Amino acid sequence: METAECRRRFAAADHAYLATVRPDGTPHLVPVVHDLTGDVLAFAVDAKPKRTSALQRLVNIRAEPRVCLLADCYADDWRHLWWVRADAVAAVLDAGQPAAAEALARLAQKYPPYRDTPPGGPVVLARVQRWTGWAATPP
Amino acid sequence: METAECRRRFAAADHAYLATVRPDGTPHLVPVVHDLTGDVLAFAVDAKPKRTSALQRLVNIRAEPRVCLLADCYADDWRHLWWVRADAVAAVLDAGQPAAAEALARLAQKYPPYRDTPPGGPVVLARVQRWTGWAATPP
Repeated sequence: METAECRRRFAAADHAYLATVRPDGTPHLVPVVHDLTGDVLAFAVDAKPKRTSALQRLVNIRAEPRVCLLADCYADDWRHLWWVRADAVAAVLDAGQPAAAEALARLAQKYPPYRDTPPGGPVVLARVQRWTGWAATPP
Repeated sequence: METAECRRRFAAADHAYLATVRPDGTPHLVPVVHDLTGDVLAFAVDAKPKRTSALQRLVNIRAEPRVCLLADCYADDWRHLWWVRADAVAAVLDAGQPAAAEALARLAQKYPPYRDTPPGGPVVLARVQRWTGWAATPP
């Protein structure tokens, strides 16, 4: 799949998956809601009940910034399957930093629940180094 | 979320996500269709166009068998969100091995496309060491 099509599908996806590596070398996986602007993927951390800055995904990124994100479509009819993978390098920003505030504004644009309850935790910006995409049926 | 509920939701999910670690230490992510029997997650590799045994996920598992799998539900109404994560130790089996053949039979039971076109590649069995689950609305 061409890079432009990878970007288009990833940007339009309503959620994605984040894989990081724990300090003990094992992989870790969470779903995320995201914004893609250019080649920068952004997602935020809720300040809500979780222990925000101690969250495993943030601990992992601070120790190993190389991450992998995936957006996909699953369907019982496997002719409609596709996925797009982004290999990226991530950084954790405090919500107060300008780039974080801009990403939060874009996330609130995409996700109505964020308008009512803005995530108060850090923002992760992940710069995509490589796009890989696959579709059962060519675009 | 209790372990029994984690298992129930993961088994019923129509697909999941597999995170492995590449030999260079970066995480790698693909969607999988899976069977869960007891605490053993199984998925197969299509023998189709891909270069089966050189597939990155298999290269990774052979070098680092500790993997992470995630099943989830996304909805625009975030009150319906949930996810279940399985930290597991995986092994790659040739399709001819008895445990692989049994897993393939279960996968064909769950996925009609596998009945028409059985995956010809290796089978991965991943024994779950830890279940973690989260739901926006308690079960």
